[in-house]
Amino acid sequence: MTTPRPSGPGPRPGERGDVLDPLCPTRQLLDRIGTKWTSMTVKVLAQQAPGELRFAELRRRIPGISQKMLSHTLHSLVRDGLAARRVEPTVPPAVHYQLTALGLSLEKPLSALRTWAETHMPQIDHNNHLADNPPPG
Amino acid sequence: MTTPRPSGPGPRPGERGDVLDPLCPTRQLLDRIGTKWTSMTVKVLAQQAPGELRFAELRRRIPGISQKMLSHTLHSLVRDGLAARRVEPTVPPAVHYQLTALGLSLEKPLSALRTWAETHMPQIDHNNHLADNPPPG
Repeated sequence: MTTPRPSGPGPRPGERGDVLDPLCPTRQLLDRIGTKWTSMTVKVLAQQAPGELRFAELRRRIPGISQKMLSHTLHSLVRDGLAARRVEPTVPPAVHYQLTALGLSLEKPLSALRTWAETHMPQIDHNNHLADNPPPG
Repeated sequence: MTTPRPSGPGPRPGERGDVLDPLCPTRQLLDRIGTKWTSMTVKVLAQQAPGELRFAELRRRIPGISQKMLSHTLHSLVRDGLAARRVEPTVPPAVHYQLTALGLSLEKPLSALRTWAETHMPQIDHNNHLADNPPPG
């Protein structure tokens, strides 16, 4: 996908993205799925799969996430087809979320990246400390 | 790591991070390594490993990255101990970058995430289009 495309940015149907192509939307996708909030939301939904979780329960299981950030993250997952939203017509309405098959397939690489970060975090914390406090001389 | 720690946030030496612990720096680490620019920079440096690349050559191989964003990304990689920076005392000085062993170990999970994004991007592009143009009725 490094040759000019006749019909605007993005791949033609059936094509594959190329993150090194600045016109390819894979870059934006990578930024959406690479955030800590997406990673944690997909993790918690994957733990529940194939079941659903309500918004409040999701928020409880992701300590520190704001209502606004969880709303934004879920909206993005639904728009990408990674999660499905179901509104139960109760009073007040209950909103449930679950991963789609596509969302579940994303958990594998996200989990590998989280595991790498969790495993190497002490080393990186140490490296940060050394960088901020260089030995004299 | 969900119990209170006596000595401030972050794991004790030898501990493992926990992304669901809001006090654990793994969350910030995940956001640093999850960006498209980090992913592309590590990819290009991994392709060159164990060799080095100069700043200008790195920038040429990552179309669309600004000088400022590449500087920021490389500074962060060096501070985390994922890349090493070597200044050759020429006039003007030549600055070279290469991945450390730790940085090379990060390429595997980053590559898996990029491959997922590139493979599923056409489907997600299609999902976005459907979400923005819902069928009538």
